Amino acid sequence: MAKEIDKITPYEKDFSKWYVDVIKQGNLIEYGPTKGSIIFKPNSFGIWEMIKQEFNKQFKKLNIENVYLPLLIPISYIEKEKKHIEGFAPELATVTHVGDKSLVENLVIRPTSETLFGELFQKIIRSHNDLPIIYNQWANVIRWEKTVTPFLRNSEFLWQEGHTAHSSLEEALEFSKKMINVYANFLRDYLAIEPLVGVKTENEKFAGADRTYTIEALMKDGRALQCGTSHFLGTNFSKSFNISFRNKQNKNELVFQTSWGVSTRLIGGLIMSHGDNRGIIIPPKIAPYQVSILELFSKKDERVKLISLKLKKDLEKLYIRTKIDSSNKTAGFKAANSEITGIPLRIEVGPRDLKNNEVTIVRRDNLEKININIKDVPSKVKLFLNDIQNNLYEKSKKKLSKNTLIGKTYEDMIVAIKNKNLIIMPFDGTAEDEENIKKSTGITTRCIIENKKDEANCFITEKKTTRWVVFGKAY
Amino acid sequence: MAKEIDKITPYEKDFSKWYVDVIKQGNLIEYGPTKGSIIFKPNSFGIWEMIKQEFNKQFKKLNIENVYLPLLIPISYIEKEKKHIEGFAPELATVTHVGDKSLVENLVIRPTSETLFGELFQKIIRSHNDLPIIYNQWANVIRWEKTVTPFLRNSEFLWQEGHTAHSSLEEALEFSKKMINVYANFLRDYLAIEPLVGVKTENEKFAGADRTYTIEALMKDGRALQCGTSHFLGTNFSKSFNISFRNKQNKNELVFQTSWGVSTRLIGGLIMSHGDNRGIIIPPKIAPYQVSILELFSKKDERVKLISLKLKKDLEKLYIRTKIDSSNKTAGFKAANSEITGIPLRIEVGPRDLKNNEVTIVRRDNLEKININIKDVPSKVKLFLNDIQNNLYEKSKKKLSKNTLIGKTYEDMIVAIKNKNLIIMPFDGTAEDEENIKKSTGITTRCIIENKKDEANCFITEKKTTRWVVFGKAY
Repeated sequence: MAKEIDKITPYEKDFSKWYVDVIKQGNLIEYGPTKGSIIFKPNSFGIWEMIKQEFNKQFKKLNIENVYLPLLIPISYIEKEKKHIEGFAPELATVTHVGDKSLVENLVIRPTSETLFGELFQKIIRSHNDLPIIYNQWANVIRWEKTVTPFLRNSEFLWQEGHTAHSSLEEALEFSKKMINVYANFLRDYLAIEPLVGVKTENEKFAGADRTYTIEALMKDGRALQCGTSHFLGTNFSKSFNISFRNKQNKNELVFQTSWGVSTRLIGGLIMSHGDNRGIIIPPKIAPYQVSILELFSKKDERVKLISLKLKKDLEKLYIRTKIDSSNKTAGFKAANSEITGIPLRIEVGPRDLKNNEVTIVRRDNLEKININIKDVPSKVKLFLNDIQNNLYEKSKKKLSKNTLIGKTYEDMIVAIKNKNLIIMPFDGTAEDEENIKKSTGITTRCIIENKKDEANCFITEKKTTRWVVFGKAY
Repeated sequence: MAKEIDKITPYEKDFSKWYVDVIKQGNLIEYGPTKGSIIFKPNSFGIWEMIKQEFNKQFKKLNIENVYLPLLIPISYIEKEKKHIEGFAPELATVTHVGDKSLVENLVIRPTSETLFGELFQKIIRSHNDLPIIYNQWANVIRWEKTVTPFLRNSEFLWQEGHTAHSSLEEALEFSKKMINVYANFLRDYLAIEPLVGVKTENEKFAGADRTYTIEALMKDGRALQCGTSHFLGTNFSKSFNISFRNKQNKNELVFQTSWGVSTRLIGGLIMSHGDNRGIIIPPKIAPYQVSILELFSKKDERVKLISLKLKKDLEKLYIRTKIDSSNKTAGFKAANSEITGIPLRIEVGPRDLKNNEVTIVRRDNLEKININIKDVPSKVKLFLNDIQNNLYEKSKKKLSKNTLIGKTYEDMIVAIKNKNLIIMPFDGTAEDEENIKKSTGITTRCIIENKKDEANCFITEKKTTRWVVFGKAY
């Protein structure tokens, strides 16, 4: 911790190396003891807590109730839904022993909890009066992935998983759409990321869903990141778990279900969206600290301390999350540390500026520096924070718009992806066609765009189609 | 959910049955799929969220930083600290496989995370400038217990575990004391429970600690519940994990550590402290809902709806957490449901009272009913909530004081415990003496009282001693 800040590999030169550099030096993670596990240090866990807090507010308004279900699931539960077990089998961490005694039935660490919620719903739902049930849980899950990247793909990650039961197909389908829009707006309004919103193809949808809605964001290196999904499960789980209710006509019916989730992957998404060669940039609305006040002095200066403390108090009155760096490091180190940890604004309080009753404010997004009078700090900081939030979002929006092309031919697709774009193609091919594209190019379908309906020839089958599908390389 | 509320077994008749009745009917839990696992329903998880929120506020003021470490620990880590592994070995849920492949090294689900924090501290601590490190994590842990009781003893529970590293013994010891006092005050101020604060004997202390501080609360049935512990770990883990720092004299030294935790057991504690034969009673400060407004009407009455909504808005302006029960159940059902789920206050809004511009307020703690004018509701509710919080605490304090006896002889102890008391005894016996008492009576030492220092004869060894130890039956 005491060591000086190391150099960051420029992202233009080696994006993966840049990513690893910024997360290590941004005080975000340490690697854990097992493959693909990470330790969330205060800076990254702080972002996650801000994300949770904001979602919890929004969930409350939508009458979503938080619950908590067990970590361990009997393997027989997972096996009840055929596609579900097919999808998850190779990734399941399995508990076979307690102490030196072997268990009667193996238990898996939840990779997701549809099966437990299914069992719960079966127990507590009797009549149409009990519906809808709209539950959410914040939890850790384990999926043992072959390739791992911190935040994006870890053996263990943190997430929220919502699970609902409804009395009609329409209501459930509507709810799954509503939740993908909640996610999309969260990305825009809080993470300052413009996503593509669409529907997954058969190949890419959730194991056990009838339909998967997704939001996909474009990273700095031109690859797409799936940032959140909302599944319409139909009656797949209610059939397997026998979740029925007595309807108004006093007859038994199966419930219709949804599930939806976002995870700590969002942290990776915001790093790869906004970061630069000085480190990460955290959008002000979800920054654990929005302002860092740097005390600068060669010899101890009482006024620097007093003004720093006063500014902190003034800012906190406006609910601006503020910290003071009063360490005995150099001015340069403090500035670099504030930048690399992604704090949106820093205020440099030094004896020279103070002579004119001024301090220096530096924006993290565009590195703009201005000297302002002490008394103007609170109002100016508030303005800047809003401006940074908007600026990050506008950049993300422009980038997505500029780098999402429309193509017609296989060649179009190859060129577009090579040049770090996403591309929307007329595509009506089969699951096999998708598989072939993936095998030969590494390109996958990201989502079907629902509101684009003009007719064109599928670039694979050459048949007329109105289905437009986003292709890209994905994390 | 739609079914009518069942009868609760009176606690005087069968305390365990009462407990199971109130947690099931209070909408707190469902049983999970494996032995000792439970599902936290919205009412109990809501209490836990309130507890977390308040602790997080207090932790922030104490400069405690939240982090998150992995769920799975290589068995070799656990084995590094000898007493630690001895204490936990039989309870460890062990992952041996992922999918159908067996792991090279078995991984255990964390029963607590001293070993992982040890490994982390070893990585990130270099010099005295890095100290103290004061981390906390909110996490799920698994300890496979032989006997289980919902909330009190589950295979999986939720908790916070704090882990710190310091440059001196004094500072670490001081910090572990500070945290037990944070817990004790939390019990008093939020859970409205008066605890005993003391030190565990050798037999009862944490596996790997030099000293364990504890808070013990007295339940309605005369048994003690350990509600939180804070451990001074000395250099036990820093020796095993080689966690050293360069001191001001530029020499390497081992760090001194502490760890401390409270868990979802607190929910059980508040139920068994405050509950009565109508169900649980949640202290207002940590109640997910503090007020339930019951709409009462035979035929639909617009005014009932309007006034209920207005009252809700008025109360929420005062930050009072309020919900409306607008279901089509009977008045009696709604009242019983509000009581059994422990909501501190209910407001009955019915056409008859409304004729006089009045509503009826009913306190959950003493079941007092009063009619008051609509315009007085917000101020009166605020007053009542304070009063309920205080009243619950005063009752708990009186009960602890009345039921904590001082004894001299073995006979004193037996009689006191039989009559549902705790008893403070002069005790200077060995670990073996403790073990013998436990085997023949089921009575255990709860804690050593640090501020009682008068001299008496040990009731076992008959030697003079100034060590006074609380004995009781414990959960």
